Amino acid sequence: MNFEYSQKSKDVQTKLKDFIEEHIVPVEAEFHAFQQNPENLWKRWPKTEGLKQKAKETGLWNLFLPEDYGSLSPGLTNLEYAPLAEIMGKRIWICELFNCSAPDTGNMEVLAKYGSDAQKGRWLTPLMDGEIRSAFLMTEPQVASSDATNIETSIVLEGDEYVINGRKWWSSGAMDPHCKVAIVMGKTDPKAPRHQQQSMILVPMDTPGLKIIRPLSVLGFYDSPEGHAEIELKNVRVPKENLILGEGRGFEIAQGRLGPGRIHHCMRLVGMAQYALELMCQRTLEREAFGKKFYDFSSMRQEIAKAQCDIEQARLLTLSAADKMDKKGNKEAKDLIAMIKIVAPNMAMGVIDSAIQILGGKGVGPDTQLAHYYAIARMLRLADGPDEVHMYQLGKSCIKKYGNS
Amino acid sequence: MNFEYSQKSKDVQTKLKDFIEEHIVPVEAEFHAFQQNPENLWKRWPKTEGLKQKAKETGLWNLFLPEDYGSLSPGLTNLEYAPLAEIMGKRIWICELFNCSAPDTGNMEVLAKYGSDAQKGRWLTPLMDGEIRSAFLMTEPQVASSDATNIETSIVLEGDEYVINGRKWWSSGAMDPHCKVAIVMGKTDPKAPRHQQQSMILVPMDTPGLKIIRPLSVLGFYDSPEGHAEIELKNVRVPKENLILGEGRGFEIAQGRLGPGRIHHCMRLVGMAQYALELMCQRTLEREAFGKKFYDFSSMRQEIAKAQCDIEQARLLTLSAADKMDKKGNKEAKDLIAMIKIVAPNMAMGVIDSAIQILGGKGVGPDTQLAHYYAIARMLRLADGPDEVHMYQLGKSCIKKYGNS
Amino acid sequence: MNFEYSQKSKDVQTKLKDFIEEHIVPVEAEFHAFQQNPENLWKRWPKTEGLKQKAKETGLWNLFLPEDYGSLSPGLTNLEYAPLAEIMGKRIWICELFNCSAPDTGNMEVLAKYGSDAQKGRWLTPLMDGEIRSAFLMTEPQVASSDATNIETSIVLEGDEYVINGRKWWSSGAMDPHCKVAIVMGKTDPKAPRHQQQSMILVPMDTPGLKIIRPLSVLGFYDSPEGHAEIELKNVRVPKENLILGEGRGFEIAQGRLGPGRIHHCMRLVGMAQYALELMCQRTLEREAFGKKFYDFSSMRQEIAKAQCDIEQARLLTLSAADKMDKKGNKEAKDLIAMIKIVAPNMAMGVIDSAIQILGGKGVGPDTQLAHYYAIARMLRLADGPDEVHMYQLGKSCIKKYGNS
Amino acid sequence: MNFEYSQKSKDVQTKLKDFIEEHIVPVEAEFHAFQQNPENLWKRWPKTEGLKQKAKETGLWNLFLPEDYGSLSPGLTNLEYAPLAEIMGKRIWICELFNCSAPDTGNMEVLAKYGSDAQKGRWLTPLMDGEIRSAFLMTEPQVASSDATNIETSIVLEGDEYVINGRKWWSSGAMDPHCKVAIVMGKTDPKAPRHQQQSMILVPMDTPGLKIIRPLSVLGFYDSPEGHAEIELKNVRVPKENLILGEGRGFEIAQGRLGPGRIHHCMRLVGMAQYALELMCQRTLEREAFGKKFYDFSSMRQEIAKAQCDIEQARLLTLSAADKMDKKGNKEAKDLIAMIKIVAPNMAMGVIDSAIQILGGKGVGPDTQLAHYYAIARMLRLADGPDEVHMYQLGKSCIKKYGNS
Repeated sequence: MNFEYSQKSKDVQTKLKDFIEEHIVPVEAEFHAFQQNPENLWKRWPKTEGLKQKAKETGLWNLFLPEDYGSLSPGLTNLEYAPLAEIMGKRIWICELFNCSAPDTGNMEVLAKYGSDAQKGRWLTPLMDGEIRSAFLMTEPQVASSDATNIETSIVLEGDEYVINGRKWWSSGAMDPHCKVAIVMGKTDPKAPRHQQQSMILVPMDTPGLKIIRPLSVLGFYDSPEGHAEIELKNVRVPKENLILGEGRGFEIAQGRLGPGRIHHCMRLVGMAQYALELMCQRTLEREAFGKKFYDFSSMRQEIAKAQCDIEQARLLTLSAADKMDKKGNKEAKDLIAMIKIVAPNMAMGVIDSAIQILGGKGVGPDTQLAHYYAIARMLRLADGPDEVHMYQLGKSCIKKYGNS
Repeated sequence: MNFEYSQKSKDVQTKLKDFIEEHIVPVEAEFHAFQQNPENLWKRWPKTEGLKQKAKETGLWNLFLPEDYGSLSPGLTNLEYAPLAEIMGKRIWICELFNCSAPDTGNMEVLAKYGSDAQKGRWLTPLMDGEIRSAFLMTEPQVASSDATNIETSIVLEGDEYVINGRKWWSSGAMDPHCKVAIVMGKTDPKAPRHQQQSMILVPMDTPGLKIIRPLSVLGFYDSPEGHAEIELKNVRVPKENLILGEGRGFEIAQGRLGPGRIHHCMRLVGMAQYALELMCQRTLEREAFGKKFYDFSSMRQEIAKAQCDIEQARLLTLSAADKMDKKGNKEAKDLIAMIKIVAPNMAMGVIDSAIQILGGKGVGPDTQLAHYYAIARMLRLADGPDEVHMYQLGKSCIKKYGNS
Repeated sequence: MNFEYSQKSKDVQTKLKDFIEEHIVPVEAEFHAFQQNPENLWKRWPKTEGLKQKAKETGLWNLFLPEDYGSLSPGLTNLEYAPLAEIMGKRIWICELFNCSAPDTGNMEVLAKYGSDAQKGRWLTPLMDGEIRSAFLMTEPQVASSDATNIETSIVLEGDEYVINGRKWWSSGAMDPHCKVAIVMGKTDPKAPRHQQQSMILVPMDTPGLKIIRPLSVLGFYDSPEGHAEIELKNVRVPKENLILGEGRGFEIAQGRLGPGRIHHCMRLVGMAQYALELMCQRTLEREAFGKKFYDFSSMRQEIAKAQCDIEQARLLTLSAADKMDKKGNKEAKDLIAMIKIVAPNMAMGVIDSAIQILGGKGVGPDTQLAHYYAIARMLRLADGPDEVHMYQLGKSCIKKYGNS
Repeated sequence: MNFEYSQKSKDVQTKLKDFIEEHIVPVEAEFHAFQQNPENLWKRWPKTEGLKQKAKETGLWNLFLPEDYGSLSPGLTNLEYAPLAEIMGKRIWICELFNCSAPDTGNMEVLAKYGSDAQKGRWLTPLMDGEIRSAFLMTEPQVASSDATNIETSIVLEGDEYVINGRKWWSSGAMDPHCKVAIVMGKTDPKAPRHQQQSMILVPMDTPGLKIIRPLSVLGFYDSPEGHAEIELKNVRVPKENLILGEGRGFEIAQGRLGPGRIHHCMRLVGMAQYALELMCQRTLEREAFGKKFYDFSSMRQEIAKAQCDIEQARLLTLSAADKMDKKGNKEAKDLIAMIKIVAPNMAMGVIDSAIQILGGKGVGPDTQLAHYYAIARMLRLADGPDEVHMYQLGKSCIKKYGNS
């Protein structure tokens, strides 16, 4: 490796790998069988809580949190956390066991950075303890939400309460029986300057008027138990203290929320791609056709070689972004963060696609995680803004940088 | 259009489009709601039989069949049928309404061409009448089935019966409650020359020893009610009269079965891609971001322009293959059939991917058919042999043709 | 073939192939040696005129001309001429031998369609007789000429003369010692409506004020003897009778000039790609590495298979455009013409690139035409408008067509 | 940057940039005019020696050499040299001014590492002083030289002399009037084990029997004055002391020669791509079409954004390979070196292609270095082994690594 990991990071990597070998590998077939059974839709796997408890006791908890906000966390930098995200990415379902799942991680960061003491006590503490889960309500079905200024949900102050009206979808995490609170993005002042119209507000999931319309499938996958919900907000009333940071600060919070989350997503994608690469390498040793081992087909070696080149490049780019965030801050790292958001999902799709092709029927079916990871990578070309939005901004920034050189 | 369709084909196209407008468009939302509801898994939609009856009465029945084997069919050539397959491809679920679904179409062709009178009476007639459905059991989980000589299922004559042992998967259609019979590919003589080891045999689905192990999902989709099953065959006994054509003729039948089916698949893929193209054109008129209509983004126009180029080319290539099959036979058309098998699924994936990207959240979710068609196109890069096998053969044929010029 | 060629076209194809075998194959090595020798830059190959004479006597002359304007021409439709263009594309340098070279072909069409009798007598006749060659002066270095309304060259009437001032480049054909006349696009009225500002005018190459600044290389190739010139027009005076069709008609003429030329270019590109395909097929039979024949590497077969798929699709698309032009006219065929302009050069680049890679050192060097054809195909992604302009228009047209369906 | 450059490297970078601004920028137009003039083919630019002298005096000399072998050199590691190679890559022709051109760099490394004292005195010293240049004769026209064991040139000991017979091509540097010596790869014992048949031997260019047959163009470029020659070796006799290291050690030397050269090539390609990126950024600010600045076309921003992503990834990958070579040696870095050899030329071609497309006529012509760099990048997909050979080996290595995990 070239971005030398600190000893601290290496120690947690070892601990995490050991935990996986000891506690997770023996039960993962059981987990997948439970999760793929249509009868268990929206049910939590019974062993989840026990494994969370074990992880917490081992110190593998809230790994993503850069500092310890009064709860267990090793306090890792983005660069130190990155390889852990890659390891978890190879088995994407285990993130929750270490309290490292989106969208909880982003929500915890928002509360830790911008929340009032009351908000922290009420929501951050149970989130950090893994007692509850949360949702993030941003995207709306009626508008191109990739341009956040299009968002239409209204948040209106009436007396001591904010009244919220709107419709959201792709509210990840909202289907989970443990999900107790949502952070909702809306507009408090549609007439303010373009980036000061928005606010974020905390809404308990059981607030009257908040109604889950339906779960949404992502390329056929429901991602149970977290899921992705379409939600109606109809005259939803919450105390005005639920507003985060202040009116008109929504856009600013959204920006602050994004950086680390992108590193997490991208390193998990690197992990998924690495998983796919290893599967296809194994397959070439097992199978043969037309009198030759798969191993001996030059075209298969090419797929594998290209996959390794693509993975390694995306990994380095993501580490480079993490490093820059750590050293120079999110703003300075803006272009690199845009780059990894463009590169990593496309890279992962390409590698997983090659693996599916080499594994054949096994690749498209339920016996590996390839099909699921393919769906995740496809979704991540859209989530947090489609590729095109990031290229639009990155291209602009690049022209500004080099156009007059 | 450049391959002029005959008047006969044009008349059926009009009739089909009218039928869709009148009878299908009004109920298709209802169908999708039924089909996407996890509670209806492996149930047939109640209105299916009524619509089939109407289609049969209108003469829109067994459209794929080149001649009328004693049942209703307009008797169209491959070139005449191709545009109908495209139309049905835009709404893939309606194929069954016209008795034009895989794998029934291929199975009917096999029985019509190679079946004994008794086999025809017992199975072909009810299949052509749409009373039952069927499955095709070829692929096996333990071997690279893309090389058909790898297949391991044994078919052994014992007295008046054949005894079948093996394990099959990706047995499309086998989950359907109406599925009553399977055509099974296996080996009657593993010591015979490479392409004379295989035979095909008819196995009623309720034969003891035939056990459905589980349905398989394709990139998250179960394709209910037909589905794709994993099936165990354990000492399955059928009368020796169930063997089709004769021992050692399996490979020959498989070859004969493939040609027309490839045209069907590819034209349906053209239809799916055309559906995606139209959706994205519509979307560019509806949405805006960053102060511009989607319509005005040059990058979106490029996606649309490329999609149209790719669709039109694949359409012409498929029509050209159909035309050659009609005029010169399957063997002469072999290279063109390989080409469309390589081109069409990849083309469809590319176009659908662009459409998903432009539709955003709506594109990956359940509100359009994009996600489902993406999965189908992905599967069709593997079904009937992965791209790589076809390129391997086509490359060989091409080298033979031009290598010494 | 699927677009059945007429007997007339087939007869000319045979005659052309025979001529090539008999008269061209024996001397082509000599031609290339002459042409590649830096000492012969801007000299015409001594045997050119003799071969032209032979071709004319054989009736292989002005093959591109749909009708016979008083000169020898078989009078072929676009669809009938297309396969001849493909055959000539395999040996691009021979086009001139049959008086079928750009830009003469387009210029002759312009004069035949829009020229006055005097213009025809003065320029069309010697062009059709192959006595002189011509240039087309459109593109300007100072503006994005892909948007023809950007063009700045001025054409101002003073008394009985037009005075022309401007700077042109990529004036193909202008370096040829035989080049005697140029058609110049400029503006007669910069204040007229957007598409009525332009006019076209005939300028003899020896007119005072017309100065060749330098030849331009295309990816390293000078394309001697025709070449591509940068030209200064400084107070160039020509009689007012040299204006073609009338003031403000330049855009209209430009549009009319384009259609057939695109078919020619694209079919020649198909021919170049076919040449590349055949070379790589041959190579796989000749070479071996790592103990295997190239022929046996699955990756090489894949390259070849993909190449054949791409070529065949582009060929069908181009024939389909030619057919539509013949039957419905240029306007109706507009979208198809845009499609082939986008598809064919990219297809050719891809196939030639694969061939270069398989031929290795021989592929990048001077011993085959691959490197030269690569440069031509690359240039044709820009000439007559870059891909992006065509995608911009085609995308718009497509949205209009399907956006409200 | 993420791979922190040492202060030493940063200092040389600054010095190099200053030298370029002061001494090179003012004369580069003059150099290009000289070099593009066909009359100057195979002539050296008169100012070359003066600039070399200045560079040497400034300490910008033999920058690539890791240690100082008795001659001026700052003694930089691969990682320290890499950014200097990138800077020189933006103006590829200036490498010679700092005595950093291939193939001299590789030849000097070979002599420094494996040469006898006599060989060093006779050839290494004048090479390091920039008094002479050299060639490397490896590839042969008759065989697939990418598999080095195919090489056929014979080196036979007769008395005190070795007698060499064979034919070589792509002998880069051999056309330069200053080229005085060649390192020739051939076989001393065709019956020895596969990798012990080859030897390398020094042959002065004026040895009788060594005959330059012709210069070869690379995609139309002659790369004067160095060039790429086809060379006949007919009974060429040299003293036996000219053999390097010993009989049968040729393959070993070839391996040792490659590592650093790959870093140089790849970082220069990064520099060429960066040059292309900057040109296209500038162009988007200068031009407009269809009423919009290029800058505002989303498709152009996408090209630019993708280019930046690709460049940054290739840069990081190459630095990572350089770093590993420095820390762990060539052998450990083998896979990374294969990766950059695959990635960098393809990346550069893609970025340059985008730039050519955005610059239009200016892009394919002689007024920028884009066309030349395109040809160089294309050649580097073949030189030192085609992509396919590296993918073949890398794929194998990857399967070995992950196949049993």
